Amino acid sequence: MTGTDSGGTGVRRRGRPPRTESADTRDRILATAREEFSEHGYEKTSVRAIAKAAGVDSALVHHYFGTKEQIFEAAIAVAFAPALNAPVAIADGPLDGVGERLTRFVFGVWENPTTRTPLLAIVRSAVNNDTAAAVFRRLVVAQLLRRIAQRLEVPDAELRVELAAAQLVGCAMLRYVIKVEPLASADLEHIVVRIAPVVQGHLTGP
Amino acid sequence: MTGTDSGGTGVRRRGRPPRTESADTRDRILATAREEFSEHGYEKTSVRAIAKAAGVDSALVHHYFGTKEQIFEAAIAVAFAPALNAPVAIADGPLDGVGERLTRFVFGVWENPTTRTPLLAIVRSAVNNDTAAAVFRRLVVAQLLRRIAQRLEVPDAELRVELAAAQLVGCAMLRYVIKVEPLASADLEHIVVRIAPVVQGHLTGP
Repeated sequence: MTGTDSGGTGVRRRGRPPRTESADTRDRILATAREEFSEHGYEKTSVRAIAKAAGVDSALVHHYFGTKEQIFEAAIAVAFAPALNAPVAIADGPLDGVGERLTRFVFGVWENPTTRTPLLAIVRSAVNNDTAAAVFRRLVVAQLLRRIAQRLEVPDAELRVELAAAQLVGCAMLRYVIKVEPLASADLEHIVVRIAPVVQGHLTGP
Repeated sequence: MTGTDSGGTGVRRRGRPPRTESADTRDRILATAREEFSEHGYEKTSVRAIAKAAGVDSALVHHYFGTKEQIFEAAIAVAFAPALNAPVAIADGPLDGVGERLTRFVFGVWENPTTRTPLLAIVRSAVNNDTAAAVFRRLVVAQLLRRIAQRLEVPDAELRVELAAAQLVGCAMLRYVIKVEPLASADLEHIVVRIAPVVQGHLTGP
């Protein structure tokens, strides 16, 4: 994965870098951006700091990604690439199990430290900053919730999905962020048993 | 409300300030602390900044309130003094209406700009800082939720109340903080009609 092009000459050309080097640099900037945003939040992270940590010029960061908001969105999209494919699996399958599938998916993301850390960073950024909140809406809400809403095929599907999501978001806040007891230490299966029917009720109830 | 003592001589005494001046200064520091925490959040607010804005010495702030954490807790307690008396009214009355009373109370706090602003500041601080989260747990959760749990008189009352609170916390997050549509613009009564039965179900359901 070094900067040699596919011709394999190993000689650096002038001008635009070869395809693979360009992709490597882009990936490195993105990985660095994820770390910076995770550690400092949206507001306190600057494009200059990302560029410096990635060992490139700020102009190159802008060239690849655009504004700070666009870098943030790209960084989130990478962090949640696996999770953002999940809505298909959640929306597919029997409609009477969609509440439990969505519930297990959300708690799965929060229980896994690999996804919990970037998610926590996004939530913190979104709560503190309107621009980060807009990215959260576009990416997480639009991609995750809209696909499930489409499956429901009822006029108020979007509101239903959001009220269901509210139950899950609130559980995640109190269990993983504010750490309220006994919820924070409660057995996960015990919570799923209580929450999944509520989520299902919001989605497909009368 | 100036610094004259109850003797009414108008002459400033040496040493400890008279009762009324002391109370005025304490109130002024507390009001200033509320503003500073609301504007900058828990982490970015220093005792020195509160003291400076209130026109007093840092040592006096510590003398009245103790640590930064204790100032934060006192500032929240003042901001929510009216709201913190509400649990009695919520817990009293017929048990089959407790879900709707709690739902209306929570949305009432969020719909009112006077209480929404400090609440938003607390939520932001609690999401970003573990110490602020601990204050949130002690004050909001313990005072609000425990009283309702006591009324339920079932073994898992605390978990029930927290899952009910999770539905309300999640709604508030998505509607007032992240501002997800259509939930953010939905008619409040429409939301109450859908949420109150869920809250009631968590509290008193099978």
